[in-house]
Amino acid sequence: MNGADLLCETLLANDIDVCFANPGTSEMHFVAALDRQPLMRCVLGLFEGVVTGAADGYARMADKPAATLLHLGPGLANGLANLHNARRARTPMVNVVGEHATYHLKYDAPLTSDIESLARPMSHWVGRATDADSVGKVTEDAIRAARKLPGGIATMILPADAAWTDTTSSDLPSVIVPEGSQPLDQAQIRAAAEALRNARNPTILVTGAALRDAPLRTLDRIAQITNARLMAQQSNGRMERGAGRVQLDRVPYVVEHAVAAFADTDLVVLVGAKAPVGFFAYPGKPSSMLTDNCQVMDLAEPGADIIAAIDALADETGPGATIEARLAKRWQPEPVRGKLTPEAIAVALAHHMPANAIICDESVSSGRDFFRSTYGAEPHDFLQLTGGAIGIGLPLATGAAIACPDRKVITLQADGSGMYTVQALWTQARERLDTLTIVFANRRYAILHGELRQVGAGTPGRNASRMLDLDDPHLDWVKMAGSMGVEAARAETAEAFADLLKTACAKRGPFLIEAVL
Amino acid sequence: MNGADLLCETLLANDIDVCFANPGTSEMHFVAALDRQPLMRCVLGLFEGVVTGAADGYARMADKPAATLLHLGPGLANGLANLHNARRARTPMVNVVGEHATYHLKYDAPLTSDIESLARPMSHWVGRATDADSVGKVTEDAIRAARKLPGGIATMILPADAAWTDTTSSDLPSVIVPEGSQPLDQAQIRAAAEALRNARNPTILVTGAALRDAPLRTLDRIAQITNARLMAQQSNGRMERGAGRVQLDRVPYVVEHAVAAFADTDLVVLVGAKAPVGFFAYPGKPSSMLTDNCQVMDLAEPGADIIAAIDALADETGPGATIEARLAKRWQPEPVRGKLTPEAIAVALAHHMPANAIICDESVSSGRDFFRSTYGAEPHDFLQLTGGAIGIGLPLATGAAIACPDRKVITLQADGSGMYTVQALWTQARERLDTLTIVFANRRYAILHGELRQVGAGTPGRNASRMLDLDDPHLDWVKMAGSMGVEAARAETAEAFADLLKTACAKRGPFLIEAVL
Repeated sequence: MNGADLLCETLLANDIDVCFANPGTSEMHFVAALDRQPLMRCVLGLFEGVVTGAADGYARMADKPAATLLHLGPGLANGLANLHNARRARTPMVNVVGEHATYHLKYDAPLTSDIESLARPMSHWVGRATDADSVGKVTEDAIRAARKLPGGIATMILPADAAWTDTTSSDLPSVIVPEGSQPLDQAQIRAAAEALRNARNPTILVTGAALRDAPLRTLDRIAQITNARLMAQQSNGRMERGAGRVQLDRVPYVVEHAVAAFADTDLVVLVGAKAPVGFFAYPGKPSSMLTDNCQVMDLAEPGADIIAAIDALADETGPGATIEARLAKRWQPEPVRGKLTPEAIAVALAHHMPANAIICDESVSSGRDFFRSTYGAEPHDFLQLTGGAIGIGLPLATGAAIACPDRKVITLQADGSGMYTVQALWTQARERLDTLTIVFANRRYAILHGELRQVGAGTPGRNASRMLDLDDPHLDWVKMAGSMGVEAARAETAEAFADLLKTACAKRGPFLIEAVL
Repeated sequence: MNGADLLCETLLANDIDVCFANPGTSEMHFVAALDRQPLMRCVLGLFEGVVTGAADGYARMADKPAATLLHLGPGLANGLANLHNARRARTPMVNVVGEHATYHLKYDAPLTSDIESLARPMSHWVGRATDADSVGKVTEDAIRAARKLPGGIATMILPADAAWTDTTSSDLPSVIVPEGSQPLDQAQIRAAAEALRNARNPTILVTGAALRDAPLRTLDRIAQITNARLMAQQSNGRMERGAGRVQLDRVPYVVEHAVAAFADTDLVVLVGAKAPVGFFAYPGKPSSMLTDNCQVMDLAEPGADIIAAIDALADETGPGATIEARLAKRWQPEPVRGKLTPEAIAVALAHHMPANAIICDESVSSGRDFFRSTYGAEPHDFLQLTGGAIGIGLPLATGAAIACPDRKVITLQADGSGMYTVQALWTQARERLDTLTIVFANRRYAILHGELRQVGAGTPGRNASRMLDLDDPHLDWVKMAGSMGVEAARAETAEAFADLLKTACAKRGPFLIEAVL
């Protein structure tokens, strides 16, 4: 058994059996080792941003990490933007980054670079094997770091000679005992309960594992008892919503709206969430969305079991057994006719998306209508762009579909960000995934047009227009999808879109609708 | 004038008038400032790998830096792989990376990351503006670092408030006095001349600015006088070659071939080059391509004027005025018929490519035939993948075509690496560039199949095949190009390819040929 075999065995022993990959020469012994492991599912991405984004989507839905295989510093670099998003979502992930053989590094061969410096900003943990025997321990550390609550990005560097050399020990790979969650601080929970009771206008702000059906019901009962507002963070890795689920708003994106939403709030209790701040800074606008008088408390520390903390808070705030959580009713907005707009798309989805769909939202400015139109849609999971690094929609859907082969995965994809990792369509075709992509083809970086107006730059001139518009020529998404083996069609009216959507939802396999807005 | 205006003015004052860009909200004041500068040409890339790769191609052909505009840490991260290549090519480049406003950083908004840690591995210089007044000085430092011989990657970080705040000084932007090159060490040059005269089998190994027509003629005369072999590094940023130019081999890629090429070499004089090492390490194979007995000498230090050093070496080695450089004659190989092979493509190019074409080579395994078939082709520039980070071909061609609008730019593009930054086709269409892309559609990572064989892994099984093959489905490059507004056609025989190539060379504008191998 060589180091690469030991790595594969350790991953499999710990229930990591999907590897999203784009290998190179320095990883060839790892590829050979994977080839000896039929239990490992290897999924090729034609660009590393697809690889890391898919690993993110997979783990969000499978509730366990995938591995990635990346080729040296540049391969890692290509995957960093989606690692950034995964880091913000607290997604568990084990990245294996190939490296030159240890003795080859001093020669500074063309592909040599400082992998640690690249990895650190987007990882919670970075480690490096030094030889074949160290691979087992480093892999275990990586898995432990990935699984540590609330989830982490673990990046391990695998020198080629550590992979190809035989190990001296014949010990079997270890099944890791997960690190225990940080014990709950009962005093902290009592303090939160006390503060909720005393506040005039409290908000309970939620993200992470607390956004599933059961904990949301508990939180809603707490909110009723304490007269608190229950709200989700602006961006969340995964949220269970729709008919039969607690109806939840998110912190608005636009600074003025967020400030207004918290103008009267005197207490925010954070349930895994961060205190709301501006996505960007603007001249003369605040960075914090809260007033100076607003008290902010964490329900529990980051490493704690947030579900247990919610249950403890429920015990502190009152029996609550007699109070029913308020759940959204099945409800459909009026169909929209005529011009195809983001709202028309949202309404059509509210009508036609099947139960238990997984929505991957990278619609940016176009998607703000989806949320309010679908409180009463069939129950679904809602996955977001958590770190603001565009190019996650198509990869995220790819990974989610691999985790949940029996569920329809629908991507709300802005055209500008869709181009970042468009290669994911090919992986969807190859893996025969049940993915439906809706491209919001407004043919511009619409959000930036809004931002340029805010700057007070007046009407965009030639340079600004040419940096913010995606026309001249416009992208043909039907051909684009077809070039990678994905069936596609175009809709230019609300009615045509609704028809296409209904058809696409009724059949399996990858499909793309170019919605011309 | 705000900090962003000062930045633009300083770039323009120093003859940097092309900005490859993909902006975001934090760069909106910079976009507005660029919009006030009609002399600045802003070129949008739909992914940052296109942006940095195009800036590389531009500078290689324009012999001056372009600027890039990148959106925060993730935008920089997306551009890092091609920055890695540019760093290896010693391309001058000024990257402007937007950053949150200084006072906003402590809030750790979603897009916050450690930009310096990301930038350092792929930059020769990293700096950060602290406020509007500092922008001028930081920009000057960046330009100076980019222009420092032999060329450098300068990455400056621009906080949004440094961009949007008015400057207090009304000084005009400075025209920078370039840093003088490091003075030549005459003793070092005499030592090299002496060693060349005394060696049994010396090689002069060349890269960088020495690979242009005139210095190569001088070097060839030196090689004749000293009975030395003249050779180019394996990968080079730019090389002038073809009929009427000095005929030069490169260090082979395959370790066994490189070792054989230097088996009898007792002296290597490096002219800007690095001593040859294996691109990768392999079990039981050496890292250095030279024997232990081979002496290695630098002709000059990295910061020196390499052209002056060559002239000085010519003076030391002898008058040479009576010796003519040996130049390649115009020569065409026999046309190939039948099956379309990499060789058939190379031969067709030797026949049909126009004078002064610019060849951007990212053909990886398929392109090894081009070099030997085209010693006697029309004179052309040959631009290579210098750092091994795939995904540079299409962006490189995009930048080269902007630098040289009157020259045909031909990209030899492997299909696997072409997918990495396929978005560059759109920029070629939008800018109406005279670019011709030849996709070597072998539908696999062919180089990795070879490497896997070397590992001794036997016939690839399911996992290995699915990581190394690009079939099921295969990519349709004609549709792909069409989706981005680039005309395209497919060739499946040598004759069809030659016909298509001839037609494509005779007309202007972006075109793509999918060569099915």
